[in-house]
Amino acid sequence: MTSGLSPEAVASRKARLDAVRRRMEDFGLDAMLLSHGADLPWLTGYHAMPLERLTVLVLTVKGDAVMVVPELEAPKVPEAGDLFELRAWSELEDPVQIACGILGSGDGLELGISDQASATTLLALQSRLAGAHWRPASRVTSELRALKDDAEIACLRAASASADRVAAALQAGDIDVLGRTEAQVSEELSTRLISEGHEHVNFAIVGSGPNGASPHHDAGARVIEHGDVVVCDFGGSLAFDGDVGYCSDITRVVAVGEPSDQDALKCYEVLRIAQQAGVNAVAPGVSAESVDAAARRVIEDAGFGDRFIHRTGHGIGIEAHEDPYIVKGNETLLKPGHCFSVEPGIYISGRFGLRLEDIVVVTDDGVESLNKADHSIAMIGA
Amino acid sequence: MTSGLSPEAVASRKARLDAVRRRMEDFGLDAMLLSHGADLPWLTGYHAMPLERLTVLVLTVKGDAVMVVPELEAPKVPEAGDLFELRAWSELEDPVQIACGILGSGDGLELGISDQASATTLLALQSRLAGAHWRPASRVTSELRALKDDAEIACLRAASASADRVAAALQAGDIDVLGRTEAQVSEELSTRLISEGHEHVNFAIVGSGPNGASPHHDAGARVIEHGDVVVCDFGGSLAFDGDVGYCSDITRVVAVGEPSDQDALKCYEVLRIAQQAGVNAVAPGVSAESVDAAARRVIEDAGFGDRFIHRTGHGIGIEAHEDPYIVKGNETLLKPGHCFSVEPGIYISGRFGLRLEDIVVVTDDGVESLNKADHSIAMIGA
Repeated sequence: MTSGLSPEAVASRKARLDAVRRRMEDFGLDAMLLSHGADLPWLTGYHAMPLERLTVLVLTVKGDAVMVVPELEAPKVPEAGDLFELRAWSELEDPVQIACGILGSGDGLELGISDQASATTLLALQSRLAGAHWRPASRVTSELRALKDDAEIACLRAASASADRVAAALQAGDIDVLGRTEAQVSEELSTRLISEGHEHVNFAIVGSGPNGASPHHDAGARVIEHGDVVVCDFGGSLAFDGDVGYCSDITRVVAVGEPSDQDALKCYEVLRIAQQAGVNAVAPGVSAESVDAAARRVIEDAGFGDRFIHRTGHGIGIEAHEDPYIVKGNETLLKPGHCFSVEPGIYISGRFGLRLEDIVVVTDDGVESLNKADHSIAMIGA
Repeated sequence: MTSGLSPEAVASRKARLDAVRRRMEDFGLDAMLLSHGADLPWLTGYHAMPLERLTVLVLTVKGDAVMVVPELEAPKVPEAGDLFELRAWSELEDPVQIACGILGSGDGLELGISDQASATTLLALQSRLAGAHWRPASRVTSELRALKDDAEIACLRAASASADRVAAALQAGDIDVLGRTEAQVSEELSTRLISEGHEHVNFAIVGSGPNGASPHHDAGARVIEHGDVVVCDFGGSLAFDGDVGYCSDITRVVAVGEPSDQDALKCYEVLRIAQQAGVNAVAPGVSAESVDAAARRVIEDAGFGDRFIHRTGHGIGIEAHEDPYIVKGNETLLKPGHCFSVEPGIYISGRFGLRLEDIVVVTDDGVESLNKADHSIAMIGA
């Protein structure tokens, strides 16, 4: 049996459930069915593995909260006072039937479904509850989840500090880079994230030389050479203080000796200023898109606007990517508690790529960067 | 740019696309939209990360095959001859609109959607293609994917051999267990899977002493003691010969010196015989459920029927769990090329748990076990 949530964690989740029910009422939702994804652990402390066996929390606006869970997984659901009722199903039962039984006939019901529930789950529910209308649960939960409470910020701070220690080791030259493949460096970054306290590694991108120009390049077989600039973008999730895991995400660039491409250092200086401009633009009441614009303007003014081919950032929490997205068109006004990445990049196809990323949180009067690792391009292994 | 698929890999995928289109025709499907999950890499060699940015292969029965992919991820899509057309979308475009544009008006269309596509994706498609009918893509792909071709069996063999090497190290006492936490042992199993060739670790369950009685117990803070029996169930995915990753999954039990619970060895002997009975029952023309029954009967006859609380196995391939499931009620007749786990268990609440698992493949005249690691309960670290 997993140990239970702390009384404080139960209390904060009770508040979250209340807030969710209030929004369900505002939106005219009768119930939400929460399966895979972050809504479930945010509300219950239980993170269901995305397996084929269905786990779903049936949350009605009137007061039911029943977690339908495979018998096999039931021992892993934390004790959580009276937050929800547990209904374990055995291998020969039908969990969709059990979940729908709580709702009665579907006719005319307005229902929310976890964004990351599988399409199969939704089709099974739609076929059983014909006549119901479905909306993504994020319409209700996303804005609430985007605003982190103090306990969540503590979790994110701990995850970022752990990633910072790995970044510092990289920048100090403690991680061998020269002569190793990207895949080997990626493996070491992953191992170090784990030994610095992460439970899971979400990714450890290592893009060396020309490979850096593909922002989501997987670490591959390329051997890192003298003169390469290397983009290292890594993160995972870390469980702090008995709560569920919250994510880290950091990008730093290192140079293996003097960069063989003379433009890399010049571009990096533009990038460093752009990233700082993005962070400086963050404050309560400012729109998400204006943070994107602030970082982008610096890069455009330097003539590299068409080389910055992605948005400036994404929210972060239990999920690696969540609201708010820092992108043109997102007019959401930032509030204290919003947490997201600021990560502009410059990608010169066939030559090199550069990206600099910190996780920041909006404070009452500005911004705090949760990552503290040095912002300069470290020369290592020369 | 990722290197391309080999000509053989392109040819086998062309054959798979043809087989899928024939079944689409049989089932009256106009098109399939393949997003997250294993259908996409099985058909195209590209495994999309389950991110919020939509990747979807639009496959019409008439001949369109267009992969709609975020610009950011496009460089990772392997060259694959004329298997499909690539349509990269930029941050400010709407991928759902692009995908639906290929299909025209939705009215009356019969469409398949990846089982693991997100509910949000399906809701967005349903709202754009009102009047279409949706079915899980697995209706078409699952039976085809369950039957592995020779190249796939080679991939699964390589993954199992890698997991066997880690199991052998565990059984030889090369992995310290006594006095370490389950989490530490889990971390070492994970690290060894990677150094033995896996790209990803899916899980590394370590259940010691009473924790073993929860089949899916996460490795935790419990320190492993003298006299414990320890269930170690681990696996991941390994890319062999330039193809996408295929999964491993193995369970072995070790005892740290003489088990303090005298019944553990007696139960283990029952389990060993049950697992062997399950494997021996595998042959072409035999039903999946009869394999479950063969293993279960041994455990029931020994009086532990109510302690074997899960199905006997699951198919394996690009996914860790896929068809065929080895469970009561599954009357699927096994055919050469079916690959799955045979993993009975006995769980004595509050005391200990035991499970023994191999991946097997149905051959023309019987069965081959892809895992070769010793089946006895190894005594280590005494």
